[in-house]
Amino acid sequence: MASVNRSYRLLNNKFIFDSVASRVAAYQKLHPNKKIIPLGIGDTALPLVPTITDAIHSAADEMADKERFKGYSPIQGYDFLRRSILEHDFHARGMELDIDDIFISEGIQSDITNILEIFSPESVVGVMDPSYPCYLEATVMSGRAGEQRGGLWSDVVYLKSSVENNFLPQIPSEVVDVIYLCSPNNPTGVIFDRCELERWVSYAKCNNSIILFDVAYGEFITDPLAPRSIYEIKGAKEVAIEFRTYSKMAGFTGIRCGYTVIPKELAINHTTENGSTEKASLNKLWLRRLCSKHGGVSFISQRAAEAIYSPKGREEIERNMAFYLKNAERLFIAFKRLGFEVYGGVNSPFIWIKMRDGLTSWDLFDRLLSDCQITGTPGHCFGPSGVGYLRISSFAKALDVEEAIQRLKAWKIDK
Amino acid sequence: MASVNRSYRLLNNKFIFDSVASRVAAYQKLHPNKKIIPLGIGDTALPLVPTITDAIHSAADEMADKERFKGYSPIQGYDFLRRSILEHDFHARGMELDIDDIFISEGIQSDITNILEIFSPESVVGVMDPSYPCYLEATVMSGRAGEQRGGLWSDVVYLKSSVENNFLPQIPSEVVDVIYLCSPNNPTGVIFDRCELERWVSYAKCNNSIILFDVAYGEFITDPLAPRSIYEIKGAKEVAIEFRTYSKMAGFTGIRCGYTVIPKELAINHTTENGSTEKASLNKLWLRRLCSKHGGVSFISQRAAEAIYSPKGREEIERNMAFYLKNAERLFIAFKRLGFEVYGGVNSPFIWIKMRDGLTSWDLFDRLLSDCQITGTPGHCFGPSGVGYLRISSFAKALDVEEAIQRLKAWKIDK
Repeated sequence: MASVNRSYRLLNNKFIFDSVASRVAAYQKLHPNKKIIPLGIGDTALPLVPTITDAIHSAADEMADKERFKGYSPIQGYDFLRRSILEHDFHARGMELDIDDIFISEGIQSDITNILEIFSPESVVGVMDPSYPCYLEATVMSGRAGEQRGGLWSDVVYLKSSVENNFLPQIPSEVVDVIYLCSPNNPTGVIFDRCELERWVSYAKCNNSIILFDVAYGEFITDPLAPRSIYEIKGAKEVAIEFRTYSKMAGFTGIRCGYTVIPKELAINHTTENGSTEKASLNKLWLRRLCSKHGGVSFISQRAAEAIYSPKGREEIERNMAFYLKNAERLFIAFKRLGFEVYGGVNSPFIWIKMRDGLTSWDLFDRLLSDCQITGTPGHCFGPSGVGYLRISSFAKALDVEEAIQRLKAWKIDK
Repeated sequence: MASVNRSYRLLNNKFIFDSVASRVAAYQKLHPNKKIIPLGIGDTALPLVPTITDAIHSAADEMADKERFKGYSPIQGYDFLRRSILEHDFHARGMELDIDDIFISEGIQSDITNILEIFSPESVVGVMDPSYPCYLEATVMSGRAGEQRGGLWSDVVYLKSSVENNFLPQIPSEVVDVIYLCSPNNPTGVIFDRCELERWVSYAKCNNSIILFDVAYGEFITDPLAPRSIYEIKGAKEVAIEFRTYSKMAGFTGIRCGYTVIPKELAINHTTENGSTEKASLNKLWLRRLCSKHGGVSFISQRAAEAIYSPKGREEIERNMAFYLKNAERLFIAFKRLGFEVYGGVNSPFIWIKMRDGLTSWDLFDRLLSDCQITGTPGHCFGPSGVGYLRISSFAKALDVEEAIQRLKAWKIDK
């Protein structure tokens, strides 16, 4: 008799962002004539830039040509893209990596959750809190979260970040085997500086831990001194896997392309049948998984991603990123004027608003929706330390941001 | 201390098809001037048809337009594609399914392997033998295969098919919880007829088992009476998940698009904390997984797939499928003339050649490579029951097939 994976049944039936969408839909149904400005979801709003669109057209023509047609992609992705990545994202920034360290992906979400498969089921997982909810959900699905008690999972180590520690979690006192970190962090917008990252790399080395480093928003970093990659830190190649995507930097949420870096230096202990210990290469294990469980990434998406590395492509997407960061700055100021404590928005397209008077995450969400018809995302969606906050995304069209600012200016918040 | 998932370490380090590729590369190195004709891998050879290429161009233009740009795809895929699927692949063929039963995927491979996640780790998995190797490999990775003894996995139920049973496996005498079936089967090219499928559906109902039905080559079926989908069988909606792809029928191995059908009727028992039994919807469980572990399928790929359902698109890809089937027929005859027993090739683009005189799978492979410079895939790659066979793929260019036929005609096999 087939039965259900119990770990799946432990999860809430509803995906966390769905409850937000339902609440917005309910409001819209009651007020069909009100125009809601969506600043909740981190989905890009600007169209693809011309250089990328041109690349897609050319790729379509290649696929239509009997001499240039491409079937299955190489399992790690095409060399034309991996070489561009190596040159621009790493070598030009002073990091040494090898082409075989790079795995082209359909974006971060599948890889950063499926990566848990290659680790022992007994691994203790640490999750930055608040952070992107899928880390925790994948941990629950993988059976490593234990039981839920008082809103917390018993076996998960929550790496709490709050206003008290500048939204950067402390190094844990216990041993954590697999650690999810995100920088710039979604939702707080806070980045790890070099010194912070050095502490984590050093902790991971001491404890033979692996850091899963999510840099989805890395290209939004404006601080010239902040690391763009964990591999800027000495020794990181022995302890960290990095996940990067073109989704937010180039509007690829609907194109699907990113990459995962698993340096060949990354090896963990493995006890063999006869009790001896040997080193296992995570790069090889992941490649092995992809051979059996993945059909490769779209050629069209890979050609589109390659175009990002051309001078013209880069210039065009930088203009878009600057636009989103400008949105963030304006929204930051608008909420600040209303008397809120506001964080993020400088090195990231998200701002993180602290509620006044100990209200719940839903309170500000509901007030903002009913008074201004603006949606945000309640902080509790990102973990227990997000309670009492609201995330606002700057991925919005110019007219929508303009209108949102005007509504916020006119908001009589203390009425 | 992070450590490795032991189930991953049980797998051979090398992906099964890699050992074939290495042997071909070694031969080519020794004989750099010989032109090898690749009939090993099932990768398509003809370029994308004009209607699909046009759809990709239009999709690129949509993505470049500020009003029509698309961000994240709906998690189950766009309705425009799901509606076309429902209408053409099911309703037009007399099957009743609902739009919410359909999940757009990046092709079969990820879904048909990751689907094991939603079942209890104790599930007994049955695998058609020989068959596509990823079913077995995913079972091993998921920790459900047990130990390897004499080339077999102790906890896997091998559903053996051989010349004695017309390459259709017998219904097992034991209880199997999750059953991998493939029709037309890769590699044998044999299809399940209505009567056979009814027996499996009935077995699954009696035992509360779930059938994972792989129809990657379903559109190549020429027999007008053979079922194109397991849902042509009464009651299948309560026991079967079906996996379909545009990879082979429309040259999408490099585009990546397919779909998975999980009817809402499909529910399995689940024992709750307090010991009571409730029904769990597999459709909901899978959707829940995708929300956390998937970023949606490329909009471009979905628009490309939609074009397959236009009359012109269908006509164009049918021409290509007919071309591949013609290749199969010609290769079938060529091997038959050489005195081999040959199977498949009628409802599938693969032919399955039985070796004479009890030779190993590698023997014919090596002879064919060294005498004719043609590659096939040794049958043991597809499971223990594949030993003594060779698979030949008809996915090749016209000139290559012509040349292969000439070489086979001239082959002095008994020299």
